[in-house]
Amino acid sequence: MDIGELKSANGINLTMLCDFYELTMGNGYLEAGMENTVSYFDVFFRSVPDNGGFAIMAGLEQIIDYVTKLHFTREDIEYLRSRELFDGRFLDYLSNFRFTGDIWAIPEGTPIFPGEPVITVRAPAIQAQLLETYFLLEFNHQSLIATKANRICRAAEGRAVMEFGSRRAHGITAAVTGARAAYIAGCCGTACTVSDEIYGVKALGTMAHSWVQMFDSEREAFLAYCRTYPHNAVLLIDTYDVLRSGLPNAIKAFDEVLKPLGIKKCGVRIDSGDMAYLTKKVREALDKAGWTECAITVSNSLDEYLIAELIRQGARIDSFGVGERLITSRSHSVFGGVYKLCAVEKNGELIPKIKISENTEKITNPGFKRVYRLFNRDTGMAEADYITLAHESVDDTKPLELCDSDARWKRKVFDNFEAVELQKCIFRNGELVYELPELEEIRRYCAYQVSTLWPEVKRFANPHSYYVDLSEELMKLKDGMLEKKSGARS
Amino acid sequence: MDIGELKSANGINLTMLCDFYELTMGNGYLEAGMENTVSYFDVFFRSVPDNGGFAIMAGLEQIIDYVTKLHFTREDIEYLRSRELFDGRFLDYLSNFRFTGDIWAIPEGTPIFPGEPVITVRAPAIQAQLLETYFLLEFNHQSLIATKANRICRAAEGRAVMEFGSRRAHGITAAVTGARAAYIAGCCGTACTVSDEIYGVKALGTMAHSWVQMFDSEREAFLAYCRTYPHNAVLLIDTYDVLRSGLPNAIKAFDEVLKPLGIKKCGVRIDSGDMAYLTKKVREALDKAGWTECAITVSNSLDEYLIAELIRQGARIDSFGVGERLITSRSHSVFGGVYKLCAVEKNGELIPKIKISENTEKITNPGFKRVYRLFNRDTGMAEADYITLAHESVDDTKPLELCDSDARWKRKVFDNFEAVELQKCIFRNGELVYELPELEEIRRYCAYQVSTLWPEVKRFANPHSYYVDLSEELMKLKDGMLEKKSGARS
Repeated sequence: MDIGELKSANGINLTMLCDFYELTMGNGYLEAGMENTVSYFDVFFRSVPDNGGFAIMAGLEQIIDYVTKLHFTREDIEYLRSRELFDGRFLDYLSNFRFTGDIWAIPEGTPIFPGEPVITVRAPAIQAQLLETYFLLEFNHQSLIATKANRICRAAEGRAVMEFGSRRAHGITAAVTGARAAYIAGCCGTACTVSDEIYGVKALGTMAHSWVQMFDSEREAFLAYCRTYPHNAVLLIDTYDVLRSGLPNAIKAFDEVLKPLGIKKCGVRIDSGDMAYLTKKVREALDKAGWTECAITVSNSLDEYLIAELIRQGARIDSFGVGERLITSRSHSVFGGVYKLCAVEKNGELIPKIKISENTEKITNPGFKRVYRLFNRDTGMAEADYITLAHESVDDTKPLELCDSDARWKRKVFDNFEAVELQKCIFRNGELVYELPELEEIRRYCAYQVSTLWPEVKRFANPHSYYVDLSEELMKLKDGMLEKKSGARS
Repeated sequence: MDIGELKSANGINLTMLCDFYELTMGNGYLEAGMENTVSYFDVFFRSVPDNGGFAIMAGLEQIIDYVTKLHFTREDIEYLRSRELFDGRFLDYLSNFRFTGDIWAIPEGTPIFPGEPVITVRAPAIQAQLLETYFLLEFNHQSLIATKANRICRAAEGRAVMEFGSRRAHGITAAVTGARAAYIAGCCGTACTVSDEIYGVKALGTMAHSWVQMFDSEREAFLAYCRTYPHNAVLLIDTYDVLRSGLPNAIKAFDEVLKPLGIKKCGVRIDSGDMAYLTKKVREALDKAGWTECAITVSNSLDEYLIAELIRQGARIDSFGVGERLITSRSHSVFGGVYKLCAVEKNGELIPKIKISENTEKITNPGFKRVYRLFNRDTGMAEADYITLAHESVDDTKPLELCDSDARWKRKVFDNFEAVELQKCIFRNGELVYELPELEEIRRYCAYQVSTLWPEVKRFANPHSYYVDLSEELMKLKDGMLEKKSGARS
């Protein structure tokens, strides 16, 4: 057998995880003498998955890792040469490639809103273009999962939510970075062992149905498990019949093994059937048998809607195991982040760029920009985000009138606010200048930042559209460019 | 800056990409003296995504790669020791772990149906249990994407479909193995460069809107591109306005650069707007200008439904670029494959195992089984799949009466058929005994196998339920076990 023929996708050179057109364009920029044209690209997204009120920024750490390691191997160059499309000068350029530009980004765990630049890249054209695919892939994936996980955790109203989705994830890294993103957004742990090993996202789990089936009877299976793990005895009670078999067998095993040891903490898990009905019956029976500290965990295709509904029905649940609908964001599996050119430098001058579209929501905000969050100084709550051109300054000691750029008659004066710039400088001249926070810190920061959003922004149905407004100067620039382009065509 | 703190998820040890409970159960099997209990697990799925009539098997090559490399590193053992849950004997067992069992699987590219064992594992309990998570992850992901891509390609009715989804994929491997699965199922190429480098899935792509914006005018951008790539001049014509700007500028560039070179093949791509209307207008103008061999490609959140609808409306499209809705299987992002114990060996005897459930579709088929596809000898078409116990033989020289196990009154006699066993032996006693086909061969095999399905099975709306029936002996075994379990409870 020729095992050498096996093709694994694990441990690949991420430099080549770029859309092929990044390379054909790069070669073209060189041929057109534009390889040193300094260009500005924004990463932003156009709408929140599940019609939610906000998303959660995630994936930055992996993006930073990518940038620091970015280089082309000899095999990459040979592959590209074999395509017979690229100039030798371009392949030489790639051989010596390293990123030398600047990158600003909103930290992981921050609530983010449509239209605002979450990452901005300033670099020579070939470099800036090359980053597009991986930046979007990592930002889109982790922000999708963090946003979904945060919804699910909020629905659970303080009950623990465990991420259980590896087996339904879209491949290796979907499981691993998915568990990371879910943890940032509030999950308390994961079933994915390697995510614990790499990131310290606590790996949890006890038994599958196969454990129960492997023994001659459910009772023997439960006794054996309790003997091996008296301090972690969480028994899966739905292999045959929850109320007539699983539950009584579990109580017998607790009585026989745990009680003599004085252990009161234990658990049962239910993975099928009517959760609202079953958990009430199970709670009643456990309490009656004296197992009041036995926790009830449920799993089985849960999401934020089902969890909210179970709680509304008075289900007696202590924690949730959430799998496929979290790890694939089942109800909305696409996070639509894009990477768009917003300016270039030409003869020392900054030339703003715009993309027009017949789909008006696809029109971009031109220029090199900054984004601020306005927090009310009394309540600490986030009131609006404010996008300016980079050279503008925001004076938060004076009232500020904001205007909805889509509906100009909607104006609102903000007073008594603190303006916090959201993007941090990550790379300067290719050097990493950002102190990476620990995962625990990102998780705490996320929880706190979400707490600064009004409940109206956080609700699932018809959330309030949080204000993301443009400065007057930016609005004028955009209007002018749109008029000019429109005029040029007619 | 401490770059050493960066946590990448690329190149991880897949052994630890297992749900934590595989390990707690493994340790428990050892403690219970069951580590050498030979057990049989089936991978199967319960329903086809998008209510389709069949799925496409994919991911086997990566599963084989995983099994051959499966081992625990010293770091893995130390991590597990730090969890203070596992016995020293178990950690010693893992230190010397290698897979020694048997695996059978249906080859990649085969149409597969709910309820049939697509992979069967026979191995000592700890080993067989450990494989669960990765087997499901890889099978579920690649089969999901292959199934979706096959739908999209069938909707395109012979027009080329390119996989363009890396930027919206769920992480690194979702992009890379996703491109592989899409290629197996019929896509002609991918935007993902590294998938070409690794798998030889042709990487394609020309320009983004940023190319057009980077220049002072669209016309200059198009001229520069045509000069650099006269033989691959596919111009993106919707940056400002398709009909009033992009199209006339493209024709001018073709006239100015390609015509003098005698080049007739070129292309335009449209990424927004009304595709049915625009492509008709664009085709008309291109033909009028003499560019009859200029191909029209469209992209922009396409899937099988939109493609079928565009074709129905008479849109003039030569090829499709399909991104987020393919690479995340947007309309149905979960493939629900499961891994269930179906038998154990005890004192040399095979003991069948069943999992019962209040959700009746979750009840499993007990025993060590085989699955056959019955092809009509005259038409070559697939008529039914037939699951037997492993010791049964199927005589395809005689008529065979099949009976629907969910609706016993539905019986049908098959005659003049060839019974082809679907599972191939992949590992025997831990040794790889399967010749891995090349990707091109899998792709051709897939196209052929799909052609053996009747159109009624392939349609998108209400497809015919293909027969997957159980042998009489298997049905009796299952009935008996259900009755016994049910009797035991009452």
